[in-house]
Amino acid sequence: MRYARVSVGGRAVWGRVGEEDIELLTGSPLEGDPEVIGGVPRATAVWLPPVVPPVFYAVGMNYPRHIEHVGAATPDRPEVGYRANNALTGHGWPIVKPAEVEGRFEAEPELVAVIGRTLRHASYDEARKSVFGWTIGNDVSARTWQHEDRTFWRSKNSDTFKPMGPWIETDVNALAQTTTLRVNGEVRAAFPTGDMVFDPFDYIVEITRHITLHPGDVLWMGAESTCQIEPSDTVDVEISGIGVLSNPVQREGNRA
Amino acid sequence: MRYARVSVGGRAVWGRVGEEDIELLTGSPLEGDPEVIGGVPRATAVWLPPVVPPVFYAVGMNYPRHIEHVGAATPDRPEVGYRANNALTGHGWPIVKPAEVEGRFEAEPELVAVIGRTLRHASYDEARKSVFGWTIGNDVSARTWQHEDRTFWRSKNSDTFKPMGPWIETDVNALAQTTTLRVNGEVRAAFPTGDMVFDPFDYIVEITRHITLHPGDVLWMGAESTCQIEPSDTVDVEISGIGVLSNPVQREGNRA
Repeated sequence: MRYARVSVGGRAVWGRVGEEDIELLTGSPLEGDPEVIGGVPRATAVWLPPVVPPVFYAVGMNYPRHIEHVGAATPDRPEVGYRANNALTGHGWPIVKPAEVEGRFEAEPELVAVIGRTLRHASYDEARKSVFGWTIGNDVSARTWQHEDRTFWRSKNSDTFKPMGPWIETDVNALAQTTTLRVNGEVRAAFPTGDMVFDPFDYIVEITRHITLHPGDVLWMGAESTCQIEPSDTVDVEISGIGVLSNPVQREGNRA
Repeated sequence: MRYARVSVGGRAVWGRVGEEDIELLTGSPLEGDPEVIGGVPRATAVWLPPVVPPVFYAVGMNYPRHIEHVGAATPDRPEVGYRANNALTGHGWPIVKPAEVEGRFEAEPELVAVIGRTLRHASYDEARKSVFGWTIGNDVSARTWQHEDRTFWRSKNSDTFKPMGPWIETDVNALAQTTTLRVNGEVRAAFPTGDMVFDPFDYIVEITRHITLHPGDVLWMGAESTCQIEPSDTVDVEISGIGVLSNPVQREGNRA
């Protein structure tokens, strides 16, 4: 099943995504068993981030070839960082490159686990069962800021820097897929989605030793490869079996 | 005015705090002008974190004497980090010290700004007007983890490590107050709340150059002094003109 959130008359509404239409639901599938209250054509849907997480977890340095490429040490245990909800945007919406950003401005194609239950002290098997489904994230990063700043606050969390979507796929073996990054239709990177140092369930086991996970929390799993993006580009992140997250890149406009 | 969230029959309900009673409200004062629907005695209230923020911002290295004490460089511009909502707990609830934590386990008494409106590209004057009110935070930190880990994930964000409350005070000149940290009634630190390198409005101006702030976002402003806390202690953070945030410290229990 594919679940999304779409904008209907300015309101965020959960939907079940079919081939032609999206069935609109009474509520979140993370909080019960919602009923169908209508439908909209999929072709004209306005996609929102499929969930606004209570906590937004993100992983770095989780693909061996990426770690080798940047010359970092391989982590000896799963550790997480955070991203911020202001930066979320949906499938089809622009990534806005701030006027002040110079140097490398990059896309990072990531698998995202969406947590489906309240969870503490999880076993590996409980961690597997706790994932409601999978979506796609683009961890857009301004490298100059990333190197200049004490935290990732603006390098990775400026408005629109975290496209996520288009939907949550509940029926896929996410770790057996391929992640492909395209700019204007041209493949810039492709790698086995599951070729990770620690898998999502390893992270969930480690996180929940100290932290309660909640339904709707998301865990972004890192990227093996990244690529430069520029205003007027369109950047697609595809994970086979899940879908394609596509966003145009825009230059920040003049302020009124 | 003082606004809080209290637990009533297992539900989180907003309230307006009086001397004897809490008037229960139809909704959040951050989202409109709620009406009174009842009341509960203040003495028996079960306090929740006064807000669950869309984004949880936190500042480090913001008091000159603290910076001098740790031998750090004084920041030349306002930068923020993040904390996580799982760690929030209310006034009166236990801070749970994990069984694995050794070494310094410390309280950090902090002023918290609660944002009241949607805000981008704010002037200093707009930043001043954007703060709905002020509350109190205790940025509990496990120093060994803080030094060992790549991020602050478990050192500052383990469950119960972020007491906040007891309420939001809307009518106070927060920067003209005194912050006092007490353990078991004994004063361990006291400092002028407003003796900061950058004040909350400086941070809001800088944040909103790149980021949209939303109603309910919180900004924790850092601490000048910290102190060790241990299971069976009670730790109070008082900010004059706002109130007292008090929490007992417990050792993590055996797991079933």
